[in-house]
Formats: sequence, structure tokens, C-alpha cells
Amino acid sequence: MKTTHPRLHPVILAGGSGTRFWPLSRQKRPKQLLPLASERPLIAETVARLEGICDPADVITVCGRAHAASVRRALPVEAADGLLVEPLARNTAAAIGLAATVVAARDPEGIVVVLPSDHAVLDRPAFHAALLAAAEVAAQGPLVTIGLEPSRPETGFGYIRRGGAHPAGGRAREVLAFVEKPDRERAEGYLRAGDYLWNAGMFVFRADRMLEELRTHLPACADALEKIAPTVGKRTFASALAQWFPTIPSISIDFAVMEKADDLAVIPASFGWSDLGSFASLHEVREADAEGNVVDGDVLFFDAANNVVVGHRQKPVALIGCSDLVVVDTGDALLICPRDRSQEVRLVVDALAARGDRRLL
Amino acid sequence: MKTTHPRLHPVILAGGSGTRFWPLSRQKRPKQLLPLASERPLIAETVARLEGICDPADVITVCGRAHAASVRRALPVEAADGLLVEPLARNTAAAIGLAATVVAARDPEGIVVVLPSDHAVLDRPAFHAALLAAAEVAAQGPLVTIGLEPSRPETGFGYIRRGGAHPAGGRAREVLAFVEKPDRERAEGYLRAGDYLWNAGMFVFRADRMLEELRTHLPACADALEKIAPTVGKRTFASALAQWFPTIPSISIDFAVMEKADDLAVIPASFGWSDLGSFASLHEVREADAEGNVVDGDVLFFDAANNVVVGHRQKPVALIGCSDLVVVDTGDALLICPRDRSQEVRLVVDALAARGDRRLL
Repeated sequence: MKTTHPRLHPVILAGGSGTRFWPLSRQKRPKQLLPLASERPLIAETVARLEGICDPADVITVCGRAHAASVRRALPVEAADGLLVEPLARNTAAAIGLAATVVAARDPEGIVVVLPSDHAVLDRPAFHAALLAAAEVAAQGPLVTIGLEPSRPETGFGYIRRGGAHPAGGRAREVLAFVEKPDRERAEGYLRAGDYLWNAGMFVFRADRMLEELRTHLPACADALEKIAPTVGKRTFASALAQWFPTIPSISIDFAVMEKADDLAVIPASFGWSDLGSFASLHEVREADAEGNVVDGDVLFFDAANNVVVGHRQKPVALIGCSDLVVVDTGDALLICPRDRSQEVRLVVDALAARGDRRLL
Repeated sequence: MKTTHPRLHPVILAGGSGTRFWPLSRQKRPKQLLPLASERPLIAETVARLEGICDPADVITVCGRAHAASVRRALPVEAADGLLVEPLARNTAAAIGLAATVVAARDPEGIVVVLPSDHAVLDRPAFHAALLAAAEVAAQGPLVTIGLEPSRPETGFGYIRRGGAHPAGGRAREVLAFVEKPDRERAEGYLRAGDYLWNAGMFVFRADRMLEELRTHLPACADALEKIAPTVGKRTFASALAQWFPTIPSISIDFAVMEKADDLAVIPASFGWSDLGSFASLHEVREADAEGNVVDGDVLFFDAANNVVVGHRQKPVALIGCSDLVVVDTGDALLICPRDRSQEVRLVVDALAARGDRRLL
């Protein structure tokens, strides 16, 4: 593969077990395995989205044991060898540190591109441009994050406050602060201020630089990774992982490193991104009919607008006089709620768990 | 069976093929076969409701060929022999005339009690009292209808305007007029006036008297019935029915006889009656939970009130933040609409028919 930019090592984090798409999502079929934005699982879409800027064989995917088989099936064959299975969940610092260790063993100054496995991107060229801009900066040393230009006063995301031009040049900006998920009032202030960006969990850095930062800010993690490093690509890797990975503190990369590191940059970007946080968000990424209905399946609408309907096989769903509803029929369960309350499906999952109904979780 | 009143010959009209309970109701499973008011089909409930005022062996049920087997299965064994299967649908004058002919062959002055097969009655003692009062009057000659005291300005029913005391005495009143389904304004006027009753399609009369009235007002019907009469209880009955029943004009008993007869009486009554005209009406006859939800199946409610939910087997239905909805899941189809639009399910049936989807009709 010919490229005019640094070689990218994508690291796709697929450890999530979200319940916000119940009844579509289950413990064994988490969000990243659902075809929410297209006919492919989100994780397959995430890999496909990198076409043209990396070699699929360089893609590393990190997931837990419970989903390893399903994730492997969802990946394109070229990327399947890059699957890293965590012996247990240890949050993003451990997952990213492990991936950086694997990349460093092949290519110490290799550029790691950390991406969530379950988001959607509508504007692929803009996405590629942002990653390549970040890679150019990262090659010079800084840890780079992608900061999404906010379009609404969202309270569900962390923010990045950007400063002036970064010495690395180009689109890069200084990072003034990582900010926790705000309340509504603060979020509105951030939107008005104009210098706050959404933290979408996309990070670009040189493998060796991340390992240095982990040595400084999370030495217990660095210690474990140094035990694992010599086994990368060898038969002893799995047993080293089983022995040392559990000793890594469970902490997010944001808390462990990004909020503490000095050598940071942010690439402000806008590429039709959605975190697909709930059924309501399908309206952001899926084409709607003339009445604003987003439909999967055989749905008959009569005076019904702006609904999200996910049907089951050939079974017709008839909606008469209903607007702004989410309807999800999976054959073994049915969910109905207003669009603006679709994040509350957790209530159902909790209730089913409380009554011991494991079958549907 | 000991009774202190005239022997009653109930005639249950089960020829309906209503589509207002789609997707529960289908061409092969019309409303009267659905367990809408209890765990039994409405038609079984209709027969059971007569317990104590008639001999089940005297119950005559009239239905079409398409439903004969299902209706027979739904009837209590004692009543199954009383099934009259129409060779084709010929409206209520023909069905009632045929039943009167069968009763007259056994007991010329026998009292016929015509009842729809798909209504609900909450107050059985009051229902019995009304039928027995009607029977006492009918025994003296008049055709008697049951008139329900209206509780709302209903535009879906015909009305009966009652006059003063009927010479037959007791609760009987003169009938001033049968009135067509009114518009909203007229219906409100009827409710205010206080002398209008709902025509619920319940008629009580002596078999010989109805045959006389048919001779006067619908001679083509009387002619056919006179050909059939000598075969009642004989092996030739079915062939006579096949030959002569189709010659009877297709017209309702209201148009053909009740609106024209002179010797009429009405028994005003109130016995928790519902015609179960749509899913919304289930709220009139089924017990609701503390939040006003009427439920069939495994339903989890979260901040959801006044819904009607009919689930499918063990499949959980979760409703979050939804009120006044009708949700019906039959496994092969799903209907969702606001309660006050549940009569519009015909739209769905029409649409499925238009696209040639016979499977779900």
C-alpha cells in the first residue's frame, strides 16, 4: 500500500456492553455488533471507514472474551488477525496501553489511531483529513485528540477547551483543558463560547510517546506492559496477558493520561459524527422518509411522522396517528417509547434483571 | 330445567366478520371468536351469560360457512347442536327469519331472544331481568327490543325513541321511532332529551309473530322460509336451505321489520353493556391496573398510563412514557395507535388487502 502520510495503526476499542439499544442490544450482542447505521455492524463500518488511509492488516481491535468470537466474525478477514482479547475488562488506559505495546513492538514510532467501535461518521473525506492532520502532528511527539465542533448543548459528552495555534502547525490547536460532562447550563455556555469541542474518544499518538506517558502517570500500567512487551507476536503472549493484564489499574485514558499530559494537541473537526447514544440518534445518521420516519422492516404508516421503527423480519408494523415514537420489535421483546425518552431503556434492562429474566438481557 | 317464565329460545347471531380488532381479528378469526372480555371467546361468553334463564340445548347460533367449525368449537357442547350454518351471508332479516322458522317448528309461540354474539355485559342479573321483562311482553304479541340507556353521545349506534307506558305493562314502553346513527350534534341532543335509547340489536318476540311480520313486510323472505319450514329437523333441511336461503333479500331486521311493524315495545335497560366496537372499548369491560392500563400479556410499564396492550405469548412489551396508546402484538403483526383512533385499524386492513397481503387478513 502506497501512502504519503505516516503509517497508521488503528486501534478500535470494542469492549463496550451498552444497554441503550435494548431490545436490539443484549449482553452477547452489544451495540458495536448491531447494524445501526447501515446494513453492516457498526464495528465493520468503523473498519471500512478507514479504507484508503491504512492497511486493513494493521487494524488492531480490542475486545473482551465474551464478544471475541462475534467481533472476529464482524471484522473483515484482513483485520481479524489484529484482534486483541482482554482477559478481563480494565477500562481504556489498559486497552490503549496494550495496543500501544503491540504497535511499538512492530514499529516504535508507529502512529496509533484510537477509535471507538460504535460511532457513526457521515463525511468520510473530512474524517480522513482530520485523522491525517492529527497523524502529522502526532509524528512530532504530541498526544493528539480529535475535537468535534459541537452542534447542540449536549450534556452526555466531555468537552475539550481548545487554545491558540499549536506549534506543530496546520489545524492543530493547544489543549487548555479536558472538561467533564457538563450540566445543561454549562453546556449552553460552552456552545456560546465557541472554543469548546466534544471529546469523542478519538486519540492519535506515537506508540512510544503513549508508553512514556503511561510510565509517568500510570506506572503500574507501564510495569505490566513491560512484562507483556517481549512476548508480542510469540506463543507466550496469551499467558503473559493473562498474568499481567489484570494487574493494570482500571481507569480511563482521559483520567490517566490525557488530563495530565503536557504535550497535547487537538484537531478541531466536523465530519457528521454521531455517538449513536440512543434510538433517537438514528435520526442523525439514517435516511428518513418524507414524513421523517426512520424505518427498518415492513412498516405501514397512517398519519404518523418522525418515528423510529425497527421491525422484525417480514412482520408488518402498523402505526396510526403516532408521532415521535421509538418502536423496536425483536421477536422476543417489544419496546415502545417517545423518541426523547429513548435513553431510558436502561429502566427496562434493570427491571428484567431485577426479576431474574436473564433470557432477554 | 325449572323456570317460572316463558321458555326462551336464544338466537345468537355470529355471522360477523369485523375488522376492527385487526391484527387480533382475521377473516378466519372474527371478533366473536376472540377472548376480548375474558379468557373465553365472546361467543362462549354470550352463551354462558344466559345460564339460568334458558336451557343451553335451546340455544340457536347462526353463522356462515367460513366460521362454522370455529364457532362450533367455541360453543359449549350442549349448544353445539343448535348451530345453523347459512349457505351465504344474507344479513339479519334472513338469519332471524330462519331461526324463527326453526323455533316455530318446535314451539310456534316460543319466545325468541335475538342476541349479537360479540358484545359484553357486566351486570348479568340486570341483563337477565331485562330479557325476562321483554319475554313477558313478547308473549302477549309485540315485537320487543332492548333499549340501552345511553351514557355518552355515541355516533356509532342507532337509537330508539321511547314513548309512554306500553299497554303490556311492567317496564315496557311504546316505541316512537327507530333512528339512524346520528351525527355528533344530534347524538348530544338525544342524550340531553333523555328519551332516546341505544339500539343494541337485541330483540325478543314470539316466533309466530316475527314470521307474520316478515310475511307482511318482506314476503320474499316469508316465501323462502315457508319452503324451508317443513324440512326443519329432517335430513332435507340442508338442501332446502341451500336452495331457498339465497333467494331471501339481504336486508337488516331493523329496516325490514322493526322500523315498519306497528306492534312494538321497548324495554329500557342498563346492564353494563358494551358493543366492543374497538380496542379502546376494552377499557369499558376489562379491569385496569392502578395507572389505568388494560393488559393482556407480559407488559412492563414505566411512567405509562391508560394504555391497552395485548401482547403475544411470553414476549415482554416495555412501554416507557406512553399514554393512551393501543398496542397489539400478534407475533405476525403489530399495531400501534392512540386509543381514540383505534377504530381506524380498517385503514391497515384495507392497505394490506390493496397490496395483496392475504396472509394477514
